Amino acid sequence: MEKLTIIKVGGKIVEEADTLAQLLADFAQIPGLKLLVHGGGRSATKLAERLGIKSQMVNGRRITDAETLKVVTMVYGGLVNKTIVAGLQAKGINAIGLTGADLNIIRSVKRPVKDIDYGFVGDVEAVNGETLSALLHRGIVPVIAPLTHDGRGSMLNTNADTIAGETAKALAGMFEVTLVYCFEKKGVLRDENDDNSVIPVITPDIFQKYVEEGIIQGGMIPKLENSFSALQAGVSQVVITSAAAIAQASGTIIKK
Amino acid sequence: MEKLTIIKVGGKIVEEADTLAQLLADFAQIPGLKLLVHGGGRSATKLAERLGIKSQMVNGRRITDAETLKVVTMVYGGLVNKTIVAGLQAKGINAIGLTGADLNIIRSVKRPVKDIDYGFVGDVEAVNGETLSALLHRGIVPVIAPLTHDGRGSMLNTNADTIAGETAKALAGMFEVTLVYCFEKKGVLRDENDDNSVIPVITPDIFQKYVEEGIIQGGMIPKLENSFSALQAGVSQVVITSAAAIAQASGTIIKK
Repeated sequence: MEKLTIIKVGGKIVEEADTLAQLLADFAQIPGLKLLVHGGGRSATKLAERLGIKSQMVNGRRITDAETLKVVTMVYGGLVNKTIVAGLQAKGINAIGLTGADLNIIRSVKRPVKDIDYGFVGDVEAVNGETLSALLHRGIVPVIAPLTHDGRGSMLNTNADTIAGETAKALAGMFEVTLVYCFEKKGVLRDENDDNSVIPVITPDIFQKYVEEGIIQGGMIPKLENSFSALQAGVSQVVITSAAAIAQASGTIIKK
Repeated sequence: MEKLTIIKVGGKIVEEADTLAQLLADFAQIPGLKLLVHGGGRSATKLAERLGIKSQMVNGRRITDAETLKVVTMVYGGLVNKTIVAGLQAKGINAIGLTGADLNIIRSVKRPVKDIDYGFVGDVEAVNGETLSALLHRGIVPVIAPLTHDGRGSMLNTNADTIAGETAKALAGMFEVTLVYCFEKKGVLRDENDDNSVIPVITPDIFQKYVEEGIIQGGMIPKLENSFSALQAGVSQVVITSAAAIAQASGTIIKK
């Protein structure tokens, strides 16, 4: 099977001109088929603020009312996505910007209201792997914004980590997929105050041990659980690293 | 050759929920291959206003400084484009939202400064007809925002009428193209105060006569000149009509 690298980068990297330029240069170096999923939360928060719309976060997720949905559709689907696409085109990479609505690549359902009403937030229901695969095989590089649609005419705000993970799973039967989650650090750290204490490999056993010992904690726990879930679904490799290291694929490798 | 209908709709139609719903219903009725080009100027002006950015228009064109470029990229490429795409997907139409940067479909050059510095405004240099044709032949409906890119990493603001016209020309060798410009009236009117005085057919001879007689004037003159230019370049038919009439293709037919 052909190799495919799926890179997920957070908002911080793509929202500043200099870090974006570096990311695009690094991304361009990745050999073979590739796909980029981006965030944009900081820009959305900034725009909402300028428009007098209050940003409300619960468990790291944005409560998305009708006005906020407009903001994220503008920021993620417009500004951030097109800036990346134009930047990649300038490097000779035939990028296409996509939300879940475009070509119906990711359909979701509005999150049911339990304790919290997240508003126009979508839980991924179906990723159209065949359409993405057809694009990739024609040398096209999909750049996916963290937005999906419900198939009934509404866009929905959707977590970029989730989109990357679900896309990796959907393509796992068609490609040998490496999923790379980029964040601020070089990898999962043994000591959060020591940037050079990257744990090279995490298996389920090591994960359990480190969680018990308190070495792995907080937001890293769901990230790693998602990684194991992707591996179970056929993704070949998951890497957690910094954006600066994507071309090297160094960092923490998550293994079954 | 297969028939292709290219519809250009202004911002007003796509920016209000009820007129947009009607447009999507009418657009869905158009048989055969089709492509939509949309505006969004009113929403851009509104957002700019809320952000305290002054909208400056010269000859109907928006002066586009760096901040305004962000606004139009958000509004045209994000909000308006994705709202249309999600709406079409809900009708079972496999739409894809595109700016000129996506798949490099429309490259432009920043307009040279003469009397007026329009800023980040692009004059269309090349439309990638083959890529659009390949999408159309796979049953995909392109929805094009009035944005292009310069091939060097920058998005550029580009007039939607121009995009529709240049796209029609680029596809004229591959399809039997009907280009439909939608505006507020049912067609070109003989008497601007009488909505039922639609001129059914305009040829270059009739055009010249009506211009001399003052029946055709103002902004309609460049619109018709563009139409004749499209016909000269191989477009089969140009129609000027209201959005409500696109399924019927009634209105004013422009002929060589």
